[in-house]
Order: sequence, then structure tokens, then C-alpha cells
Amino acid sequence: MDIATIIGLFLAAGLVGWAIVSGAGDGAGAFVNLPSAAMVFGGAIGAAFIGFPLKNLTGLAGVLKNAFFSKPKDPTKLISDLVRFAEIARRDGILALESMTNEVEDPFIISGIQMAVDGTDPELIEQILTDELQAVADRHSLGKALFDSIAKFAPAFGMIGTLIGLVIMLQNMDDPSRIGPGMAVALLTTLYGSMLANIFAIPIADKLGLRSEEEIFLKTIVVKGVMSIQSGDNPRTVEQKLKTFLKPSLRSKAEEQPQ
Amino acid sequence: MDIATIIGLFLAAGLVGWAIVSGAGDGAGAFVNLPSAAMVFGGAIGAAFIGFPLKNLTGLAGVLKNAFFSKPKDPTKLISDLVRFAEIARRDGILALESMTNEVEDPFIISGIQMAVDGTDPELIEQILTDELQAVADRHSLGKALFDSIAKFAPAFGMIGTLIGLVIMLQNMDDPSRIGPGMAVALLTTLYGSMLANIFAIPIADKLGLRSEEEIFLKTIVVKGVMSIQSGDNPRTVEQKLKTFLKPSLRSKAEEQPQ
Amino acid sequence: MDIATIIGLFLAAGLVGWAIVSGAGDGAGAFVNLPSAAMVFGGAIGAAFIGFPLKNLTGLAGVLKNAFFSKPKDPTKLISDLVRFAEIARRDGILALESMTNEVEDPFIISGIQMAVDGTDPELIEQILTDELQAVADRHSLGKALFDSIAKFAPAFGMIGTLIGLVIMLQNMDDPSRIGPGMAVALLTTLYGSMLANIFAIPIADKLGLRSEEEIFLKTIVVKGVMSIQSGDNPRTVEQKLKTFLKPSLRSKAEEQPQ
Amino acid sequence: MDIATIIGLFLAAGLVGWAIVSGAGDGAGAFVNLPSAAMVFGGAIGAAFIGFPLKNLTGLAGVLKNAFFSKPKDPTKLISDLVRFAEIARRDGILALESMTNEVEDPFIISGIQMAVDGTDPELIEQILTDELQAVADRHSLGKALFDSIAKFAPAFGMIGTLIGLVIMLQNMDDPSRIGPGMAVALLTTLYGSMLANIFAIPIADKLGLRSEEEIFLKTIVVKGVMSIQSGDNPRTVEQKLKTFLKPSLRSKAEEQPQ
Amino acid sequence: MDIATIIGLFLAAGLVGWAIVSGAGDGAGAFVNLPSAAMVFGGAIGAAFIGFPLKNLTGLAGVLKNAFFSKPKDPTKLISDLVRFAEIARRDGILALESMTNEVEDPFIISGIQMAVDGTDPELIEQILTDELQAVADRHSLGKALFDSIAKFAPAFGMIGTLIGLVIMLQNMDDPSRIGPGMAVALLTTLYGSMLANIFAIPIADKLGLRSEEEIFLKTIVVKGVMSIQSGDNPRTVEQKLKTFLKPSLRSKAEEQPQ
Repeated sequence: MDIATIIGLFLAAGLVGWAIVSGAGDGAGAFVNLPSAAMVFGGAIGAAFIGFPLKNLTGLAGVLKNAFFSKPKDPTKLISDLVRFAEIARRDGILALESMTNEVEDPFIISGIQMAVDGTDPELIEQILTDELQAVADRHSLGKALFDSIAKFAPAFGMIGTLIGLVIMLQNMDDPSRIGPGMAVALLTTLYGSMLANIFAIPIADKLGLRSEEEIFLKTIVVKGVMSIQSGDNPRTVEQKLKTFLKPSLRSKAEEQPQ
Repeated sequence: MDIATIIGLFLAAGLVGWAIVSGAGDGAGAFVNLPSAAMVFGGAIGAAFIGFPLKNLTGLAGVLKNAFFSKPKDPTKLISDLVRFAEIARRDGILALESMTNEVEDPFIISGIQMAVDGTDPELIEQILTDELQAVADRHSLGKALFDSIAKFAPAFGMIGTLIGLVIMLQNMDDPSRIGPGMAVALLTTLYGSMLANIFAIPIADKLGLRSEEEIFLKTIVVKGVMSIQSGDNPRTVEQKLKTFLKPSLRSKAEEQPQ
Repeated sequence: MDIATIIGLFLAAGLVGWAIVSGAGDGAGAFVNLPSAAMVFGGAIGAAFIGFPLKNLTGLAGVLKNAFFSKPKDPTKLISDLVRFAEIARRDGILALESMTNEVEDPFIISGIQMAVDGTDPELIEQILTDELQAVADRHSLGKALFDSIAKFAPAFGMIGTLIGLVIMLQNMDDPSRIGPGMAVALLTTLYGSMLANIFAIPIADKLGLRSEEEIFLKTIVVKGVMSIQSGDNPRTVEQKLKTFLKPSLRSKAEEQPQ
Repeated sequence: MDIATIIGLFLAAGLVGWAIVSGAGDGAGAFVNLPSAAMVFGGAIGAAFIGFPLKNLTGLAGVLKNAFFSKPKDPTKLISDLVRFAEIARRDGILALESMTNEVEDPFIISGIQMAVDGTDPELIEQILTDELQAVADRHSLGKALFDSIAKFAPAFGMIGTLIGLVIMLQNMDDPSRIGPGMAVALLTTLYGSMLANIFAIPIADKLGLRSEEEIFLKTIVVKGVMSIQSGDNPRTVEQKLKTFLKPSLRSKAEEQPQ
Repeated sequence: MDIATIIGLFLAAGLVGWAIVSGAGDGAGAFVNLPSAAMVFGGAIGAAFIGFPLKNLTGLAGVLKNAFFSKPKDPTKLISDLVRFAEIARRDGILALESMTNEVEDPFIISGIQMAVDGTDPELIEQILTDELQAVADRHSLGKALFDSIAKFAPAFGMIGTLIGLVIMLQNMDDPSRIGPGMAVALLTTLYGSMLANIFAIPIADKLGLRSEEEIFLKTIVVKGVMSIQSGDNPRTVEQKLKTFLKPSLRSKAEEQPQ
């Protein structure tokens, strides 16, 4: 999990939890109401699911795990790897790259290099890699759309729960001492809905959008690099082509890397 | 009804119903108020209808039934069907396909194959199939627009009902014991409006949008396939052309299918 | 007035009225407050007028009357009319159409036919008809914008009125028995604003948008038809050209019409 | 000030004022609270100013004065003026136009005619006039953006003020008789914010948008007219070129004008 | 800090502070509640951070400092500087510009001039300067997006805090004298959230957007100027090319400047 997520979650979820515990003291248990939580969480997720292709969501757990726990690769490292492959291909022939595929972990690079080694038609390589890149973008955007949808429904189901609680409370106003606690319980669903949206669904949707951009950016570099290696480009040309993807401040950093 | 809809409806509608019954106990009947429901549901649907071409909505029931109860076809199955037709046309001549039209259920495929068998001009076939595809898209987008409109009006009519109820209650505050139940009834319309929008109208609109994309995707494959068969393409070429519509992960699956 | 508008208005306005009468009984008169109504309706319409070119709104009454009371023409009827004109022009020469202009009511068709009869340059005919079509679209979109603007201001002026009522009530809390009715009156403006927006302004704006699309669709058919007749096209060609505007389901219907 | 603005302001501001005076009677003074007004008006305008280039707003007073008090020119009058200039240029040579510049007030026309008389290069004339037109559009859109920004901040600062007032009131609930007036004062800022947005900022922003379109429309006619006169076009050609800017209904009106 | 920011902050933040102090008197301390402030500020910033690439935000402090404390350069001054460089290059050869780079502070101009002096390929100069310009735009838009995100989360966490406070208060209604202060504390988080969004986050986001446009505008002039000097343009041509970037009202001002 990267540092921004840890800091962000600690600040957002931690401080809300701390506000409840420090404010309510012994009464903090009153903030836990399982039926209310079930209705808001289940309702919002359920409403979001109706309009989603469940079969396409099977990869969702992987997308989420990847978004939160895998460290994004360094583009300068990726470029120096690709330049090294170009040097080997130039020196020992493209077939020498076959043994290199053991060194890299990313299956996307391996499949690209493998196709180049196999002498696959360049246009077909580009087509296949671009399709794969598009499929990654689609999985991410589908995941983002699901969390956007949950963020939209969560406050609504929170309000539905509060309205139900208020109607129940207002029907039974005989015992004034129960009005306060009744209203407190009613407000819990609005609180849950707001927390589900703002601490969970919206930040995750933002994160998935960010991660998706990063992954597409990295995969685009790989596609360009594999195509350049395949066409037998000079390693310096490969490097120059790939560095146009980097921001100026990262370019000199890339140059300092041992190649 | 597909699994996502069942899970979603169970979670969304079921949990709200359960929250009412478990929370209100014997008083759950207080949540049923026919005049309030009539005003919110009738008002929202009525306001949505004013701005819609009623004559175009006659097919709406079919669209809804289709969206919720028909199982979307498997694109890999569809492609292998079309490839099989291409093989028959190649082996036995295109007229041999006439007997095959009994095997398929989809009238869209039948009409395409029939036109190819009849020797209709290829451009005319493509024009007619594309027009039909566009008509499907229009019916779906019109249905989606209606539910989007209901989703927009439902909370508004809920609030109108609550304001009416509050005014009535505030005019009659002589009997304090009736203030609570009066306000409870007033809040019911807001609850109905919120439920109509979030459990019914928005999820259905999302679902129609999703189903529309799926149907257009499938029909586009059929159009390409029929055109390819009609032009006497080699079955392998037909297969290759149609597989470009599939995500990479589905392509190998399609290859495993018996053809 | 078309059936959708009648059903919609009956549901939306009728049910709200019924809710008030059935709920308030003898006290229904409390829902009528002329100063409140004047402030909300006058305020919202006034704020909308500030940003509108009044001189362009002189045709607004006609636009509204047309949108609600005139029946939209049937495109298949329109096409068969134009095909009939093409047959006459083919058989008796284009001058024979002059006498036909008495039979049609739509001044748009008459002016198009008249220009064709007068031997006006085809490009000029197309230019003039297209300009007129654009002017119709502009009038409609201006009308729609006005109602969108009223829909935006109505809830705001409703809230302004409620705030004024609440301040007045809160300043005079000496007599507890007047708190309820005071708040009831204060809420009336929010109710009026919400009704003005959701029963009146938004549905009318939606309707004008719909009607505008229909009129432009019909006028586009006329432009194509007149241009085709003017260029001496075969009546069958005229028919074929115009039918591409119809949805497939309407095409066969058009074919069944006597021509 | 044009008639729409007068009617609009009378309806919007007048009716709100009348509602306050007629509703509150002697207590209408309670609606005037200078500190509250200072906070809402100053806060909203201040927050809007932070994000604006103050140096570019020096012309704002002129833009506002122009938008509200200057009468928009009649395009048919403008066209007949330009046609008259074309006739003089045709008859007496383009230098004869120099004396005509005393007759027109609009500095935009004068500068265009003057450049034509001076024999400035046509492309440079068009460039300079188009730049000036763009500068007018920019000034208007900057003014519109400022009022849009005020409209965005006004309700927010109204709510901030109400929250401050409520916190103060809730801290001092010892004297029940002061609760009502305290809450009344607290609500005043929300009322001010809503009035600032809906009676002032949004309608002015709408008006500036409308005026900007009108001015750009008129200036575009002038640019075309000056270019046509400069190139020595026949006055009838000038007229025909400029009339394509008019709606059909205005064209015949333009023809009736004495030229 | 420019004058608009000082005036804006004084009006927005100053008046809110003054409203609190003048309204609450001795009780103004009740508006300071550190746990509430920690939850709202920490929560909103934390939620915004989850979806942001922290590593890219390291330059954020510089962006903010620049946006608020550096005075934007005068474009007419910038143009006369570039024209002067063009004159020197024309008179003494482009190498004479090397000594001039000590006179200017802006590293962007220095690096452009230096590359021209070094005889770098013109296309490469343009590429490098444009990349740098794009990087500035990206840094600004990332900063703007962060503050937009904080503005979105601040009111949400304010409401979460208020709901927590209300639930705590409603659970403990035994002592009526504590209801008021309890609700006052609960409302503080909504107040903080609204202030964070409207006095801080939204105006800063607007300001960053404005500053970004100004910087890109200035840097675009530099790019054009350096390219024009490098190609050996006549100083008058350089001036003419660059002045097309100025509004007409600034052009004559630029002409009056000593060059």
C-alpha cells in the first residue's frame, strides 16, 4: 500500500473513529448498529450491482488488490530495462532476448518480447499489446464506475434509513425519554451512508482512476519499446523515443541510471 | 433474470423492507399509505410522461421484459454459430443456409441470413440491418431517458408531499399527541420518492444502459458476420474478423469451442 | 393536446391537488395564499426574464400553444403527400403543383412548392428553407431555455419566501398557538416553488425539447422532398429517399398507404 | 435599461421586498442586519475576488453599465447604415466616407471605416477588428465568470453565517424568550445569500451572457460590412451578404427600411 | 501577494472572523474546538490524498508559494525584453546574448536563450521549451485538482462530524441544559467544513487555475520570442509577432515602452 493511501486512510477513517470514541466515551457502542449498517451498505452495493455486468466483475478483487497493494513501477527503471534489452538484441541478435524473459516479472513485457523473438508480424504484436492495454483500461474503468455508483447510492440509502427511523420514532412518542435515542439511531444510517461514500467509495474510485492512468502510461511505454526493439532500432534511438514520455525533471534522472 | 439483478434487488429492496419490518414491528402497517404512494408514484411518472412521446413508448414493456428476464447471449457462442454458417455456405453454397434459419431463434440473424440467401444487394442488407440496430439503440435510450426522468421527479414529488403533510399538521397543532403521527405521515412521501428513485428508477436506467450496450455489441457482430458470409469469405477469415470484437481473455475461450 | 400530456398533467397536478383536498379537508383553503404565490411565481419568472431577450419572446405564446395543442403530423402521411406532388410534377409538369398548394395547410410546404414552381434557383430554395428550419429550432430552444431558467429560480424563490416567513414567525413567538400556522404559511412558498418547477416548468421544457425535435424532423423531410421534386426526380426515387428518414417499423406502414 | 430588465427586477426584487414589508409590518426592520449583510456580501465577493485577475476587472463597471443601461442596436438599422456607406463609397469614392464618420457614434464602426479610408491593408483591418471583437467577448466572459463565482459563494457564506448564529444562540439558551429572535437573526444570512445569488448574481450573469452574444453578433456584421465596402462591393451585394445574418422574419423588415 | 488576494482574503476570512467575535463576544472561544477541527481538516485532506500521486505533490509547496506570493510578470515588459534581445542578436550576433542571460531572472528565458546561443537544433529547442511549459501546466492542474478534491470532501466530513455530535447529544438528553451546547458543538464541524471549502479550498483552486493560465500565456510568448530570435528575425518582426498575443488596449502601451 503506498504512502499516500496510508496517510489518507489514517487521516480520514482514523480521525472519524477517534472523534467517535473521544466524544462518546463509554457510549461509543451506540454508534454500532448492525441492522442499520446492513441496510445502508447492502442497499447501496445492491443498487449499484443491478446495473452492472456481474460476470465482468470477477476480476474486481484483483483490480482492487493491485490498486492498493502493488507498488507502481518506476518509469525510468522500465525505460532503462527496455534500453538494456535493445542493447542485447543489437549485440547478440533478437533471439538472445529469450533468456532475458526470466528476469522480468511483468507478463505484459514477457509476452511482448516473446512475440518479437518468435518473429510475429510487427502489426500483429502491436495489435495484441494494444488490445491487452485496452482491456486493462476497461477493467479499471468498470471498477471505477462501480465505486462511483456506490458513492451515488450510499447517501441515498442513508437517507432512506433515517426516514424509516424517524417515521418509527414519530409513531411512538408516548415515552419522551425514548425520542432522543430513537432519533440517534435514525441518524446512524445517514452517518453510515456518508462515511461509506466519502471515506470508502469516492477515494477508492479516485485511486482506481489514478492507478489506471499510471498503468496505461507504463504499458504504453512497453508497447513503444517492444516495437522499437523489434524493428532493430539502435539502443540510443530506443532510449530517445521512450524518454519523450518522461517529464523533463525525470529525464536527467533517467540519464544517470546505469544502463 | 440475471444473477446481478437478483442479488442487487434482494440487497436493495429486501434490506429496506427488512429494516422497516424489524424496526417497526407491529407498526409496520404505518409505512403503507396509499394516498401518499399514489401522489408520489403517479406524480413522478406523470411529470415524466408530459415530456415523452407516448406513441414511441408502446414497445416499453417489451424493452423492460427483455432487459430483466432474457439472458444475454454469449458472444463466443454467437461467433461460433456464424462461423458454422460460413462453413456451410462455403461447402454447400449460400442457399444451403436457408434450412439453418430454423435452428436459430434470434430474428435479427434470421432476417440477415434470409436476405443473403435471397441474393439481396449487399449494401441494402447492411443498410437494413444497421437501421434495425439503430432502432434497437433508440428504443433502449428512450426507455433509459424515461427512467432517468422518473428518477429526477420522484424525490421532488416526495418533497412536495412532505410539504403538504407538514402544512396540514402545522395547521392543526391543538392536539399534541397527533403531531408525531402527522409528521410521520408527512415524511412517508419523501421516503417513497427516495425509494422510487434509488431502488427502482436509477438502477433500471443503469440496467437499460448496460443491456443496450450489450445488445448493440452482439448485433454489430451479427452484421459483420452476415456481410462476411454473404461475400463468400473463407470460414477462417470470418472467424478472425469476428474475434477482433472479443476481449483477449475471451479469444482463447472462443478457440476452444467446437466449431 | 396529446394523450401523454393529458395523462401526465392529470397524474402530476391532479394527484397533488387531490392529496391536498383529501388531506386537509375543510382546511384546504390554507393552501391558497396569494401573496406567497405572487412572490414565488413573480420572483422566479422575473429573475428568468432579466437574462432573456424579451423582444425574441413575442412568439412564445405561439410556441407554447403549438407545443401543447397542435397534433404533430404523421411523417408517413407527409411522405405520401410529397410523393403525390412528385407524381403530379412528373405527369403534368411542375407548374401543375401551383393548384395543389391550396390543399396543404403547412405554410412551410406551400412556400417550398411555390419557390419550386416559380423556378427559383435550387440552392436558394434550400438556403431559405434551411434558414426557416433553423429559425424554428432557435425559437424552440429559446422557449426551452426560458422554462429551464424558471425551473432553476422557482425553488430558490420558494426558499427565500420560507426564510422570510420563518424570520417573521421567530420574531413573534409570544403566542405559541400561532407558531404552527406561521410555519405552515412559511412552508407554502417552498411548496409553490417546488410545484412550479416540477409540475410546470421542467415538464414544459422537456416537452418543448421533444416537440422541437419532431418539428425539425418533419421540416427536414419537407426540405429533402421539395429539393427532390424540384430536380425532377422519379416519384419512386423521391419515396425511397424520404423513407430513409423513417424507422424500419414505420416503413412498411408507409408502403401500405395509398399513394 | 431595457424593458425585460425592468420587468424582471420589479418582479424579482420588488415582490420579495413587498413580501417582507407586508408580512412583517412594523417588524420589517428586523430584516435589516448590517453585520450579517456585510459578512455575506463581503465574504462572497471576497472569495470570488481571490481567484480573479483584479487588473483585468477595471473595465467591469463599464461592462455592467453597458449591459444594463445601453440599448442594443437594431441589426436592421445597422445593416441599412452599412449599405448606405457602401452606396456613398461606390458613388463618391471611399474617401468620401471620411466625413460620414461624424454621423455614427459607435467607435467600432468609425475605426473600421477610418482604416478603410486610410487604405490600410484589408487583412490587417480584418485582423484588428476581429481582435477587438475578441477582446469584447473576453471582457464580457470575464464579467460573467465573476458573477457566476459570486452566485456560487453567496449561498455558502449565507450558510456559514447561519451556522455561526446558531452556535451563538445554542450556547445561550438560558433565556427561552431569546431563542426565537436569535434563530431569526441566524437565518438572515441564509436569506441574504440566497437573495444575492438569485436576484442579483445569477440574473446579471445570464444578462451579461446574453448581451455578449448580441454585441458579438452586431460587431460581426460590422466586420463583414466594412470588409465588403473596402473591397468595393456593389451596395446590393453588401446588403445581400449582411442580410444572411438576419432571421427570415427580420429580412423583409430590413427591406422595408428606407435606404 | 497580489492585491486581489489580499482584498479577497480580508473580505472572506476577515468578515467571518469579525462576525464570530462581534456576535459571540466573550463566548467566541466556543468556536474553537480542536478535535472537531482535526477531524474535518484531517478527514477532508486525508480523503483527498488517497486518490493522489503523493510523489508528484512534492512540488506543491512551491506551486502554492508561487501562486500567492510571486508577482505575475508584465507581458508588455516581457515582450520589450525579448525585442531587445532580438536587437542585440541582430547587431552583435547571437553569441552576444550569452552575456545577457545574467540580466534576466526567469530560468525559462535563460535556458531558451542559452540553447539558441549553443546552436541547438531549432526543433529541439521548441520541443524542450514546450515540454517544460506542459510540465508547468501539469503541476498547476494537479495542484488545482487537489484543492478541488479537498473542496469536495470538506463539507462531507463537516456533515459526518455533525451527525456524530448529534448522535452523542441525542443519547444523553437527561440534562436539558446540555442540549443547546451539545448541538452547538455538533454544528461546529459543518461550519469548519464549509469554511475550509469556501474560504480556503475553492478560492485557492480558482487562483491556481488563473495563475496557471497566466504562466502558460507568458511562457508561450517566450517560446515564440526565442524561436523568432533564433531564426534571425528582424527585431520589428519579432515585436509584431509577439504583440499579437496582447489585447488591443495593451498594444499601444507596449509601443510607448522604451526599447
